[in-house]
Amino acid sequence: MNKTQLISAIHDRQSYLCVGLDPVLDRLPDSIDRSVSGVVEFNKRLIDATLPYCVAYKPNLAFFEALGIDGWRAFYETIQHIPDSHFVIADAKRGDIGNTSRAYAKAFFEQINVDALTIAPYMGRDSVEPFLGFPNKWAILLALTSNQGADDFQFRTDTIDQKPLYQAVIERAAEWGSSEELMFVVGATRPEHLAEIRKWVPDHFFLVPGVGAQGGDLAAVAKYGMNKDVGLLVNSSRGIIYASSGADFAEAAVHQAKVLQQQMAVTL
Amino acid sequence: MNKTQLISAIHDRQSYLCVGLDPVLDRLPDSIDRSVSGVVEFNKRLIDATLPYCVAYKPNLAFFEALGIDGWRAFYETIQHIPDSHFVIADAKRGDIGNTSRAYAKAFFEQINVDALTIAPYMGRDSVEPFLGFPNKWAILLALTSNQGADDFQFRTDTIDQKPLYQAVIERAAEWGSSEELMFVVGATRPEHLAEIRKWVPDHFFLVPGVGAQGGDLAAVAKYGMNKDVGLLVNSSRGIIYASSGADFAEAAVHQAKVLQQQMAVTL
Repeated sequence: MNKTQLISAIHDRQSYLCVGLDPVLDRLPDSIDRSVSGVVEFNKRLIDATLPYCVAYKPNLAFFEALGIDGWRAFYETIQHIPDSHFVIADAKRGDIGNTSRAYAKAFFEQINVDALTIAPYMGRDSVEPFLGFPNKWAILLALTSNQGADDFQFRTDTIDQKPLYQAVIERAAEWGSSEELMFVVGATRPEHLAEIRKWVPDHFFLVPGVGAQGGDLAAVAKYGMNKDVGLLVNSSRGIIYASSGADFAEAAVHQAKVLQQQMAVTL
Repeated sequence: MNKTQLISAIHDRQSYLCVGLDPVLDRLPDSIDRSVSGVVEFNKRLIDATLPYCVAYKPNLAFFEALGIDGWRAFYETIQHIPDSHFVIADAKRGDIGNTSRAYAKAFFEQINVDALTIAPYMGRDSVEPFLGFPNKWAILLALTSNQGADDFQFRTDTIDQKPLYQAVIERAAEWGSSEELMFVVGATRPEHLAEIRKWVPDHFFLVPGVGAQGGDLAAVAKYGMNKDVGLLVNSSRGIIYASSGADFAEAAVHQAKVLQQQMAVTL
């Protein structure tokens, strides 16, 4: 999906919601078999139910890999179930030396065929660039994350340019990839930084995790992070997919997704 | 495998060589079928041939994921073929928020059952700690990598502590994990930094990539990086596994592994 199509989808559905699919066997509803095929069924039912309220899905590979060697098949079957109308983000946080990053890019963009892949910046330019330049595919680079550990390294300020690491990551990466191929992860738990980041990269989309279970505030994210193209994908995972542990889990997920979609519609 | 066992293996085999398994379909020898099962056969033959000359194997997940949904099965079959006498590192460079890192730790340490997993530090403490504390299992944290992109962020010096990022990563992480559960990735392409890093963490093992195809110098690595326990695992991937594209690929791999092992024996 390209940028124009993504923006159209957001306006059509009056939503910039991304539903995070983080399936954990122990947390599956009682009505679902606690198995790899149960996970696929859980995901498919969540997808079917929430399609009208979101524009993107973000399965996190960790939860599929935790299922063992059939986990990748469950991931693939989940991806296959998402219609072309929706943007698919493989949340994998990959990044390695050049020839290895190329292998990851090939895996996700050609074999698995997702729209976007999250990547980590620590190894620098030659670990990021192999993910760029695929038509209608996107790299989503970690910049300012939503967890407490973000404080450990991301705010370290450089003696020469006087910029914190996350700013350097954003500004450097914006030289490597245009807003047609690169997005940034900016946590909703830090909305005070969003306005500032938006000035550095006025055109790039942000993937914003941390609304819901992690405590981020949607109104603040919209206020400080939105640009002329909306420029936001706001993710909620656990708040939606585990909204009920009963047989009504899909209806409960719809309710939560709809609440977020309606809050988003007001901001558009 | 615990630290004592790893050190014994190094002395017994007079080697601290880690063989990196980065299988690429296009680079398989002509005698091997260019398929997922061909990759497994290639890996198994390389493992069988090189066992006497190395103490560890490091399959990089990227090259297995690039094979599509059967790639994880190929990874698993490869891992299963490595005897308990050898240390197995899943080179995956994972790292995510706490509950997600726990899922990755569970996947690699409980399901797949490797000895060690490489992880990325950008997200800080709560993304690293879930990989620690598994008996006889290891987290291997990226510190100073062997690629050119290491210059982009890893050398940024902080205004408060006047330390480059990679030093902060090493010193902070050494507070989180002991030398019984945590190692660091330090590229062989930067041996001038090894002596300095060894002062900060005298007891931790280093996984040193970049010898061979990437141009690192083994003698310099040994001189500057070794500690009283050896404290080194030196990786070579392409230089060994693609030493010949003919039917003699396993013999050629043995030759290259043996050359490195003999250079290592002199340093022990």
